Amino acid sequence: MSTKTSISGFLEWLPDQQLVEERFIDIARTHFERAGFTPLRCRAIETMDTLLQKGETDKEIYAVRRRGGDDAADKNSWGLHFDLTVPFARYISERLQTLVFPFRRYQIQPSWRGERPQEGRYREFIQADIDIVNRGTLPLTCDIEVIAVLLEVLRALPMPKVTLHLNNRKLMDGFFRGLDIADGADALRKIDKLAKIGEASVGELLRENLSEAQTAALLRFCRISRPDVSFVDEVRQIGIRSPLLDEGLEELVLLFEANAHAAQGRMLVDLRIARGFDYYTGTVAEGFMEGFENLGAICSGGRYDNLVAEGGRLREAYPGVGMSIGISRILGILMGRGHLAASRATPTCVLVALNNSGHTATAIRIASTLRSRGIPAEVFGQPVAYGKQIQYAEKKGIPYVWFHDVKGDQAHEVRDLGRAVQVEADLETWMPEAALLSPEIVYKGPENK
Amino acid sequence: MSTKTSISGFLEWLPDQQLVEERFIDIARTHFERAGFTPLRCRAIETMDTLLQKGETDKEIYAVRRRGGDDAADKNSWGLHFDLTVPFARYISERLQTLVFPFRRYQIQPSWRGERPQEGRYREFIQADIDIVNRGTLPLTCDIEVIAVLLEVLRALPMPKVTLHLNNRKLMDGFFRGLDIADGADALRKIDKLAKIGEASVGELLRENLSEAQTAALLRFCRISRPDVSFVDEVRQIGIRSPLLDEGLEELVLLFEANAHAAQGRMLVDLRIARGFDYYTGTVAEGFMEGFENLGAICSGGRYDNLVAEGGRLREAYPGVGMSIGISRILGILMGRGHLAASRATPTCVLVALNNSGHTATAIRIASTLRSRGIPAEVFGQPVAYGKQIQYAEKKGIPYVWFHDVKGDQAHEVRDLGRAVQVEADLETWMPEAALLSPEIVYKGPENK
Repeated sequence: MSTKTSISGFLEWLPDQQLVEERFIDIARTHFERAGFTPLRCRAIETMDTLLQKGETDKEIYAVRRRGGDDAADKNSWGLHFDLTVPFARYISERLQTLVFPFRRYQIQPSWRGERPQEGRYREFIQADIDIVNRGTLPLTCDIEVIAVLLEVLRALPMPKVTLHLNNRKLMDGFFRGLDIADGADALRKIDKLAKIGEASVGELLRENLSEAQTAALLRFCRISRPDVSFVDEVRQIGIRSPLLDEGLEELVLLFEANAHAAQGRMLVDLRIARGFDYYTGTVAEGFMEGFENLGAICSGGRYDNLVAEGGRLREAYPGVGMSIGISRILGILMGRGHLAASRATPTCVLVALNNSGHTATAIRIASTLRSRGIPAEVFGQPVAYGKQIQYAEKKGIPYVWFHDVKGDQAHEVRDLGRAVQVEADLETWMPEAALLSPEIVYKGPENK
Repeated sequence: MSTKTSISGFLEWLPDQQLVEERFIDIARTHFERAGFTPLRCRAIETMDTLLQKGETDKEIYAVRRRGGDDAADKNSWGLHFDLTVPFARYISERLQTLVFPFRRYQIQPSWRGERPQEGRYREFIQADIDIVNRGTLPLTCDIEVIAVLLEVLRALPMPKVTLHLNNRKLMDGFFRGLDIADGADALRKIDKLAKIGEASVGELLRENLSEAQTAALLRFCRISRPDVSFVDEVRQIGIRSPLLDEGLEELVLLFEANAHAAQGRMLVDLRIARGFDYYTGTVAEGFMEGFENLGAICSGGRYDNLVAEGGRLREAYPGVGMSIGISRILGILMGRGHLAASRATPTCVLVALNNSGHTATAIRIASTLRSRGIPAEVFGQPVAYGKQIQYAEKKGIPYVWFHDVKGDQAHEVRDLGRAVQVEADLETWMPEAALLSPEIVYKGPENK
């Protein structure tokens, strides 16, 4: 029915790897729900108007239309979402009267972008987003809580230590104002290139529109990177002041101090962090995996003050704060480099062997009984030589093989393949070693302590 | 950032409904994994060649292409998958040397079809598939086990009782042969309409190509519907014989008997069940929810003998057997009719109230401590009047509100909103009522016993 037709940039895991992804996502889900974020799933398709309303044509959108539909009428009208924020905003805007605010949700789904694939970057990729959105105003407490939850999740996941680099757009914009920089967006875009092209080149770019003194002050500002609140003194020493700058400093200090205990050195105030998007208005953050910093941020987000705007009517603001974890990016890097694997390639704990096709019903019943006791079990379908059945179990990493009607009597025996020991067993009471009950994620990368 | 842009036929749940979907899918996942099916996720996109190779243009495929790409070169080359079988077959065909056979996987993902939406039918819909595929031959034991697992899952899900209608294509094809019916495919297509247009109309259609005696025998065959193996005698009494018919009868009896104990009356041999697809070659099954039979099958599947064919080379067969559960269909019907709901609209068990923004860090720490003890907790962001904070909890169904620094001292108190009782509480030892820890599915439909 099928021949080989690979499409580049579309990640698909092998069975053992898919087990890792499932477990990985389950850990994230558990922690998100424990923090009161409700699950959400949005459709894959949006109207092109919705996808393009921020003018983000650089997102390499995939257009969708009915095959055989009317081209002229249909063309470009729908597309696959390129992130989870746009569908989430649209979802809220359609249910303003139904949802209870503040609304907090998590969303773990694929998105699609037609970009050039590379390590950790795919055309179909899964992200895990959390956001809190309110009607009217949203207190800084929500920024603090989103960062707190993110820190909890990143610590619980089997991956290298992640350091969150924090900044605040008010702080940056206030600094621009204090420096009399008129085109802050232009300066931001240039600063955003620091990691890519370095300080000297960014300095040259900045000097196109700014004086030597402005450029020097700005670069000094961007150099500030502190694991504690001493960044305030450093900013003060530059001698630039503005009310917005003060507000940004205060917010960042509050955010930092409220989470310092939980973060245990995993937060860094890093005044270079700009985040490209126009819509961030306060807290911004990017997280980097220790040892893999050069592969880019594996999570990012921040505060936005007008995600959802009510169409023609009196516009009430719907500010929000959220973070997005790049699940496919993290797993692509860690599995690609052999740092993450499953302890076996199947959920099965016990293979029920079949010695005679006349015993099929018995074998089915044995497997069913084990399952009803919480023990993952499958039946080997063919009554071939036991050696072949054991070989199958070994190939998949199934730890136990169950034999019945051994030597023609009604006795049951179970073979522990790891120890090469076979013993009599009672179907109603036998238990596997606890560690062998289910496949587990084996993480072999840098420590996450 | 967004205005209202609904697209018809694309299901999106409200938060409490999404919680139901998540729990529902989790139950299915747990049972699939317990039966040794490994998770799999395929990309959303296939080449149009792969999607169309069975000539299934009636599937209303959505075409995908890069926006702004070269129309002439790009047009129609990719599409969204319309089921999970085609991507699964393609996945296997690309990994014949890597996978260990028999290969068993489950897959729970959306698919897309541009059909006219109606109750239980959507343009984006989630299915949960299980399949076992082998290289060479696949024993009947696998058919038996897939049906056994399906019965276990359907019994575990919070939904009406499902009766599985079983048939076997060998039995049907063998009966055609015994009756000297040359064009079995034509007869099958007509029989497939029995549920829609009734026996009289199907009889008329059959008489176009068949004699009166053939038509009568065929309709008598299709009328056979038995909750036990007495169907064998009924078929025998028609007096038609063929070796293939015998084989089909034997397979169906074995399948039925091996699962009879577990099925407890949830299986029906129903010789009308044809399943439209060409590729079924043995066991076929469709499941119907009690009380909702008129809305169509909520699960279906069967045995196919050549899902994957190795391209130009010596074709080795990859037979398989699988079943698909229509998650969106079931939930659309049950939630649409109010039979299924979540016990509350959020995972949160405890809302940590905030009486003063100076206490934000404390509130964050309290929530974090509760979470670390497994108790879902969130902080209310604004230090508004307690009444308003309690109102928010009530709207979302959060059962407890936590107060700290009550009356200015360090004491903690927790309010049980259901009982309207507020008591002192210790952060390290307090536990909620077990039933209130997490939201649960509340099923109010017909009994599933």
